[in-house]
Amino acid sequence: MVVAGIMTGTSVDAIDIAVCEVTNEGGRHSVSLCSFISQPFTEETLEAIKQALASTASMETLSDVPFLLARDYATAVRAVPQDKPIELVAIHGQTLWHNPPVSTWQAGCGSALSALVALPVVNDFRSADIILGGQGAPLVPIFDHAMLSSTSLDRVALNIGGMANVTILPRSASLENISAFDTGPGNVWIDTAIRSTFGKRYDTDGHVARAGRIIEPMLAECMTIPYFQNEPPKSTGRELFSDKEARRLITKYSHPSGPLEDVVTTMTELTAWSIADHIARYAPATNEIITSGGGSQNVFLLERLRFHLHKSGLKADLQVHTQWDAKEAMAFAYLGWLTCNGLPGNVPTVTGATRAVPLGSISKAF
Amino acid sequence: MVVAGIMTGTSVDAIDIAVCEVTNEGGRHSVSLCSFISQPFTEETLEAIKQALASTASMETLSDVPFLLARDYATAVRAVPQDKPIELVAIHGQTLWHNPPVSTWQAGCGSALSALVALPVVNDFRSADIILGGQGAPLVPIFDHAMLSSTSLDRVALNIGGMANVTILPRSASLENISAFDTGPGNVWIDTAIRSTFGKRYDTDGHVARAGRIIEPMLAECMTIPYFQNEPPKSTGRELFSDKEARRLITKYSHPSGPLEDVVTTMTELTAWSIADHIARYAPATNEIITSGGGSQNVFLLERLRFHLHKSGLKADLQVHTQWDAKEAMAFAYLGWLTCNGLPGNVPTVTGATRAVPLGSISKAF
Repeated sequence: MVVAGIMTGTSVDAIDIAVCEVTNEGGRHSVSLCSFISQPFTEETLEAIKQALASTASMETLSDVPFLLARDYATAVRAVPQDKPIELVAIHGQTLWHNPPVSTWQAGCGSALSALVALPVVNDFRSADIILGGQGAPLVPIFDHAMLSSTSLDRVALNIGGMANVTILPRSASLENISAFDTGPGNVWIDTAIRSTFGKRYDTDGHVARAGRIIEPMLAECMTIPYFQNEPPKSTGRELFSDKEARRLITKYSHPSGPLEDVVTTMTELTAWSIADHIARYAPATNEIITSGGGSQNVFLLERLRFHLHKSGLKADLQVHTQWDAKEAMAFAYLGWLTCNGLPGNVPTVTGATRAVPLGSISKAF
Repeated sequence: MVVAGIMTGTSVDAIDIAVCEVTNEGGRHSVSLCSFISQPFTEETLEAIKQALASTASMETLSDVPFLLARDYATAVRAVPQDKPIELVAIHGQTLWHNPPVSTWQAGCGSALSALVALPVVNDFRSADIILGGQGAPLVPIFDHAMLSSTSLDRVALNIGGMANVTILPRSASLENISAFDTGPGNVWIDTAIRSTFGKRYDTDGHVARAGRIIEPMLAECMTIPYFQNEPPKSTGRELFSDKEARRLITKYSHPSGPLEDVVTTMTELTAWSIADHIARYAPATNEIITSGGGSQNVFLLERLRFHLHKSGLKADLQVHTQWDAKEAMAFAYLGWLTCNGLPGNVPTVTGATRAVPLGSISKAF
């Protein structure tokens, strides 16, 4: 089955669409990428989302968001190359609020998108897990398990997006034996540091961080954030690792006459250390780490990550995922395929839900 | 198939749930009512909805509403008598905003409800019609056509809820040949009048209206509201027939020393006249009018309606629908059944959409 997965993250930078072929051979699922593009939001959609995320949107604007998104998603479906025609679309939707275990809110109208593209659409993947007592996240682990688990290697799937998260895949582990959690910040505080010093959006290849030096007292304070010592399962977000808190630390520790690079170097070091420390503590037998997300393109961050892994005594090979940019969209294509086939998508040991169920809603408005 | 339809109107007074048996014999659909109850909302849900409708809800509250409703709907599903077990649940959801042709917003999470009751759930019935250029309303006409159309009689299905609407069903009419529109206020201004004079919620059996006299200049001003002369298809709501406008009229025309009943009588007269006038203008051949909704229990309103119909030269029989209170919930049970069977639910000649499509989204989180 050819499935398009559409992912729009909390950074609201682009609409990622991955067209995948999903196959099932005797219960062994395979997801291969056919094509992938990143499309911009229209200005109107972007403005409405920004108002919603800033809690300044009117009821009218909030009502409009799922329809604006449906139109933008339809544009992406029409734009992505289709060597084989798409048979199903799965959309994550735009997260406007995430309040587990009470509620979650991913805007994006499946029924409207289905009418626009004349294809079945699956949306609203997180709600069922939430009502069953789960965190509604992470949902990618079932995809990591299907794609990356090995009979001969202990693997970790690492995604470095705004936050960084890991899926721990012991060799030959069944779904019940995997674990997954957020290790802390991914790019979020590195981005805040470079934005507030150089005014750039991100540190390409880690050039800036490489040019600076670690501010040791700043790093030391950051390392005392309790989240890092909390036991998994755990998840975090911009509520804890906020722009405001990063700016407070930067102001407190950067010398007015000192090199601006140093705060970027320090935030990069914190990120590398926190990821390595969690893997060393919770997956010490790891042979291979496969990393994805925007942060996997930060060469200096990966160097520091290798350094800390080695220092912890971990002899794991660190590789960048071949589809580092498309992986999350591919994961939702897979989750949509699971739903369409009546198969569960959440992993209760990972999310905390009372049971595994097929996620989301299917619309066929054509 | 046994289908439960759940309706919660804009008056937010109760959760109506109708369990129906839907059958299909050679393309002839039949919906028979098995059981019907009206359940109260929980206080928490009611408070959240009221904040949302008053545009004072926080993003957190708005995120919570669909989950609070899912829990309340689940309670209703468990409470309704099931001689035959329910196989499908169809929910209208709570309208928080309706902004055709741009967007519409019916809160109520199908995926969460499905997980709670372990049944397939259809929700979000209006979005596809909206994105296809329709008004997303009215959706009941396809049900009226299936249930009430006749080969020997020209019928009108009249629903007197907050607003009043008609479905015009010429004898043997195909779906393309029916029409449906709002005639104007149903109970809304009668209720405002009795609330602002006697502090009661509604005029039981029309007792108050019967005791008063029409304030002729007030009625005359009301009759000049342009909506009444607009050509169908047309729809209206509390934006036009607002509490504020009713209060303005009441203040302007009621004598401080005069009987309080008179404003209730006048609003009842306006409602009866506007319904009769529309039927006389757009369905002059009508033999039978079958009325439903809370207003169908207002005996005096029906008397005045009969008077005006007769005055217009219409010799139609006016009957109260056997399931006058359950009809809308039954209609959504039928719409859910249509969706489940891949059949269209909207009538483009009625809503203005470019085409007829299966409405809503199906969740099977079990």
